[in-house]
Amino acid sequence: MKLSEIGELPLLRIIRKRFRGKTPRLVLGIGDDAAVIRPKNTNMLLTTDMMVEGVHFDLRWTTPYQLGFKLVSVNVSDIYAMGGKPEFLLINFAAGKDTDYGFFEEIFDGIENAIKTYGISLIGGDVSSSDRITLSATVTGYSAKVLRRSSARTGNRIYVTGYLGEAACGLELMKRIKKKVKIEKGQKAKISLKWDLALPLIQRHLMPVARNPERFIKKASSMIDISDGLLIDLSRICSESGVGARIYVDRIPMSDQLKRTTEYLGISPLDLALGGGEDYELLFTTPAKEKVNAYCIGEIVNSGMQLVDVKGKRNKVPVKGYQHFTVQR
Amino acid sequence: MKLSEIGELPLLRIIRKRFRGKTPRLVLGIGDDAAVIRPKNTNMLLTTDMMVEGVHFDLRWTTPYQLGFKLVSVNVSDIYAMGGKPEFLLINFAAGKDTDYGFFEEIFDGIENAIKTYGISLIGGDVSSSDRITLSATVTGYSAKVLRRSSARTGNRIYVTGYLGEAACGLELMKRIKKKVKIEKGQKAKISLKWDLALPLIQRHLMPVARNPERFIKKASSMIDISDGLLIDLSRICSESGVGARIYVDRIPMSDQLKRTTEYLGISPLDLALGGGEDYELLFTTPAKEKVNAYCIGEIVNSGMQLVDVKGKRNKVPVKGYQHFTVQR
Repeated sequence: MKLSEIGELPLLRIIRKRFRGKTPRLVLGIGDDAAVIRPKNTNMLLTTDMMVEGVHFDLRWTTPYQLGFKLVSVNVSDIYAMGGKPEFLLINFAAGKDTDYGFFEEIFDGIENAIKTYGISLIGGDVSSSDRITLSATVTGYSAKVLRRSSARTGNRIYVTGYLGEAACGLELMKRIKKKVKIEKGQKAKISLKWDLALPLIQRHLMPVARNPERFIKKASSMIDISDGLLIDLSRICSESGVGARIYVDRIPMSDQLKRTTEYLGISPLDLALGGGEDYELLFTTPAKEKVNAYCIGEIVNSGMQLVDVKGKRNKVPVKGYQHFTVQR
Repeated sequence: MKLSEIGELPLLRIIRKRFRGKTPRLVLGIGDDAAVIRPKNTNMLLTTDMMVEGVHFDLRWTTPYQLGFKLVSVNVSDIYAMGGKPEFLLINFAAGKDTDYGFFEEIFDGIENAIKTYGISLIGGDVSSSDRITLSATVTGYSAKVLRRSSARTGNRIYVTGYLGEAACGLELMKRIKKKVKIEKGQKAKISLKWDLALPLIQRHLMPVARNPERFIKKASSMIDISDGLLIDLSRICSESGVGARIYVDRIPMSDQLKRTTEYLGISPLDLALGGGEDYELLFTTPAKEKVNAYCIGEIVNSGMQLVDVKGKRNKVPVKGYQHFTVQR
């Protein structure tokens, strides 16, 4: 059935019924002019992001389920990157009148999975028509300690929470597979590469899971999530903090899957790890004395951005990564 | 200059610099992964809305300035409709790479005007590329007393805060004028109708101002803003409250401008007042004993929706108004 055969109000009723439920501090959820909460008596975090068909996702190889999941992850990642705990979610959904109801339902299946993954509640939003699938989400969170981008200091160690370049490599694989793979249902794609190698990379692109910073909050001095690429996101910390960074190539965590798959694809794993976006790993700094169970990839210096190669040679690096409106490098 | 010649990061820097400023309870504004506020120790309200080119607005007759202003008004109206005071704003902006920088700047001029009008602060959001102008906004507010849709009671009086049907009539005028009119700069359109008649109607469509409910909060039992049309929005109060409504045609506030302009256009003013959307007047109910300085248009009854005509005859009415995804009546 098409969305136009159902109409806005019944769609809202379906969502409202589905996401009803008691949640601490929620006074009034979906169904009125605004949602009502009782905020905690601490710092409240607010973030919002929009995803537009053809720009942020490609429906040729993204299932609605994956899209719904990713929309939530991307926003939760911003809350985590401030050292916060995510709590409430609002969604705007727009799609063409001819969109199948199954598509709508599947997006909310993915959203529901994400909500459960992060322990948050959907409390409001809107549905409307549009000629392209357009989604936006707003996530709130809270945090006693706020981890800004601006508080990295010279001598701090630089850490990342996991393997880099995987999401970008997954995207490259999907560009070749060029069709939807319901990984959420265990579906595999036909590709001349072992599926055990490809799956984790594809998963990182299609259904990224945001990293909870809980273990690092006390020790970290600054934090950001890697959404546009290691170098560009690190440069944001540097520019906000008025410092520079030195990164050691041989310390950048790259998985075996990444190395073997990039070899198969004929591309450089390091390029993906430095400039590939959407890994949603956290990048943070700590005072040198702190011991942290994460990948230490370098240190904060007074100025500039240096990349130390495997032979110990320091090279100045241009900042690579995703920027909207600009021609991609 | 095109947005693609500037790039995402410089655009964000421009916005950040422009909307910087000290605001009570704002810990961290634009420029990090999330905004940080210190919420008031009372009910917090959250609302979000998306506006897509070709669906929610027509760039043939909407200036970017008007669009920016309206985006904020629409969201503020939702906070007002809960009896709240709006406080913080987050914006997502997406446009094509070839979009002129002047367009971008003008949208934010309109947003800035709205921010000043409502006394709120822009604290976060995002810019990205898209093939259509797409905007979403999230507004927070607070309120000790929350005015739900679900608390209208039989015997309550039904009020509206101002003239109805004007925005819809303004839209009809713009469909004939079919080009941008910079009313924000005092520009007039060529139309065979006195400009003094046309302007207030056009203004209501292009740059609606949300109604502050301050004077009515204590007395009201339920409230909604008229965004989709009197009958559809009243039916929402009725269905949430489990009641019905009786409306008297001769009490519906219609301006002289509306009557004269609809006569000129050859359409029914009453149809616009009952079914036209986007007036952003408030619709509320109060116990019968309360005295309120607003237009009393009827009363809450046990069930059904009746329209009492000028001769006193009661007619059942079908609910008319805007619904996304459905064929418009």
